[in-house]
Amino acid sequence: MKSVQLVGQEVRLLDQRRLPGDVTFINCRDYREVARAISDMVVRGAPAIGLAAAFAMVLAAEQACAKASSQAQLLAFLDTAAAELRQTRPTAVNLNWALEEIMAVARSAGREEICVRVRARAEEMAAQDEAMNRRIGHYGQSLLPEYCRVLTHCNAGALATGGYGTALGIIRAARQAGKKIEVFVDETRPLLQGARLTAWELVQEGFATTLICDNMAACLMSAGKVDAVLVGADRIAANGDVANKIGTYGLALLAQAHNIPFFVAAPASTIDLQTRDGSDITIEQRHPREVTHIAGIQIAPEGVQVWNPAFDVTPNRLVTAIVTDRGVLEPPYGDSLAKEFCDQAMTYSTGVGICWT
Amino acid sequence: MKSVQLVGQEVRLLDQRRLPGDVTFINCRDYREVARAISDMVVRGAPAIGLAAAFAMVLAAEQACAKASSQAQLLAFLDTAAAELRQTRPTAVNLNWALEEIMAVARSAGREEICVRVRARAEEMAAQDEAMNRRIGHYGQSLLPEYCRVLTHCNAGALATGGYGTALGIIRAARQAGKKIEVFVDETRPLLQGARLTAWELVQEGFATTLICDNMAACLMSAGKVDAVLVGADRIAANGDVANKIGTYGLALLAQAHNIPFFVAAPASTIDLQTRDGSDITIEQRHPREVTHIAGIQIAPEGVQVWNPAFDVTPNRLVTAIVTDRGVLEPPYGDSLAKEFCDQAMTYSTGVGICWT
Repeated sequence: MKSVQLVGQEVRLLDQRRLPGDVTFINCRDYREVARAISDMVVRGAPAIGLAAAFAMVLAAEQACAKASSQAQLLAFLDTAAAELRQTRPTAVNLNWALEEIMAVARSAGREEICVRVRARAEEMAAQDEAMNRRIGHYGQSLLPEYCRVLTHCNAGALATGGYGTALGIIRAARQAGKKIEVFVDETRPLLQGARLTAWELVQEGFATTLICDNMAACLMSAGKVDAVLVGADRIAANGDVANKIGTYGLALLAQAHNIPFFVAAPASTIDLQTRDGSDITIEQRHPREVTHIAGIQIAPEGVQVWNPAFDVTPNRLVTAIVTDRGVLEPPYGDSLAKEFCDQAMTYSTGVGICWT
Repeated sequence: MKSVQLVGQEVRLLDQRRLPGDVTFINCRDYREVARAISDMVVRGAPAIGLAAAFAMVLAAEQACAKASSQAQLLAFLDTAAAELRQTRPTAVNLNWALEEIMAVARSAGREEICVRVRARAEEMAAQDEAMNRRIGHYGQSLLPEYCRVLTHCNAGALATGGYGTALGIIRAARQAGKKIEVFVDETRPLLQGARLTAWELVQEGFATTLICDNMAACLMSAGKVDAVLVGADRIAANGDVANKIGTYGLALLAQAHNIPFFVAAPASTIDLQTRDGSDITIEQRHPREVTHIAGIQIAPEGVQVWNPAFDVTPNRLVTAIVTDRGVLEPPYGDSLAKEFCDQAMTYSTGVGICWT
């Protein structure tokens, strides 16, 4: 399953807003259509957004090659396209990184090669993202027993990435390794990514998938129905504190109370050594309407206030292991992260890490 | 605010299905209209359902008095009405109790007195229910500091009872006692009673009310924004284990992890000494559609399974205090419940308690 694909002269985007009701694709022939689709949240998930932008640059390059006469004109057109794409989701780190990668390739190529090299780099980025997720899956599945009932939260799946997924990649790899896996999915209010996206991905692939409301997780655990909790991450601090979708921290506390291992899966690029610990992470408040309305229907009275943080921070002491594409990290994370990542100047997809010493 | 009222020859029911969007009342002139309204969930909350049925019996008695010639005919008509009302919500304990109370009054009254005495008893039941909640409020508010930010779950409010509410009664009493109270409300999936009903009750009365999704409670606590958690109860076992709306147990674990007191408010009739502990309580699974659909809109894919328990059990060790209309009980609950309730044969609204010895 691919949420973002480059097919000939088209970027093909799975319209995630319409899942699970409708499986429809938006086919973009112009980079501006991709920009609008990113803006309108047809695509979500930081790696998927980055790839959509890279593919949009392929369309832009091919449009430019057909029209622009000089290399300077061609690069100017691409700069404009990149700027338009960048402002669709200003805070998305992967988006910015993907556009810079593509522009670097374009600038270093000769006039005749630009289109070929931009396309090749965009396709390589997609392949690398999926390969990275497959490595996470490979390392992570070794942590799960032969029969394992996993509880997951939000969507850390194929839909959010170039394919395969992080937390869901581990679930896929465990099944490929012959393990019997059942998955419980938190619905993940307010935007219901668990119910709408994760459940859809898993049901599509024939996993035994059971949906719960977020407030049922504790009862599910006390009923002995959960062997492991498995989530993704938006950012991991240098000490192993994990920022992820709101609700993750509560799940980690509940897992600890029931002696259930709590695993975090994310590419190494998610580890931000410039963030010393979770207290350095600002928690973004999102629009009240996400909570007061569901599918356009108002569920709360006028006059009520809303507290709607986008994510929360899980302290490192609650995290049993962090699974990256480089391997499995275990506590104490300050040491294991430093050992893994501080022996070299690191260039990740999100930038250069700096070690605290 | 009254969700159920007897006004002259009409039973006036606040249509809770349409809250918070519309504040509409259904005025019933015939007991069968009340029966249909109970069946259709216009009224919810066990005490409110019981009162609606008692008021319906007043209408039935007055219809019967106008028509039936003999006392036997009159009682036969009332028996039929009670049977119809009873089957509207077969598992509601208060409903059954209220109908038996009314029938006992009718049977013991002379032909001429029946209507007057049935009406008087129904009105007394409503007054007693509210008075009981006011006592809970009185005892409970003493547990809260002068400035207190309370987190509550589901609706243990005026809407569910004859007035004032249990958990929300404590909040009301604290404000009346001059305390500064702010309330955070869990939306309470799947049926959103927190968002739809509790937030509405509180905003109506001018409380500073902030809505959160259920999965935000842990983050709210770790942000230092909660001084006490306050919930109602469906049933309290002889050892102090508490069955309440799904999500309560998780909240209790999170409160413990953040050193926040966790209070349960309920009339003494909720204490069921015939239930030795929480393991004796069967957890009812409700229809998957409650989870897969919101306001008629499908939010999850076809083929997904659903685990949808109606309530959960909070073990006594997580409960800081139980507030009843008789006073505040503290751990160890096996002892405090026995001391309070086992010195006499007890007749509560839900039946006779039996002490474990």
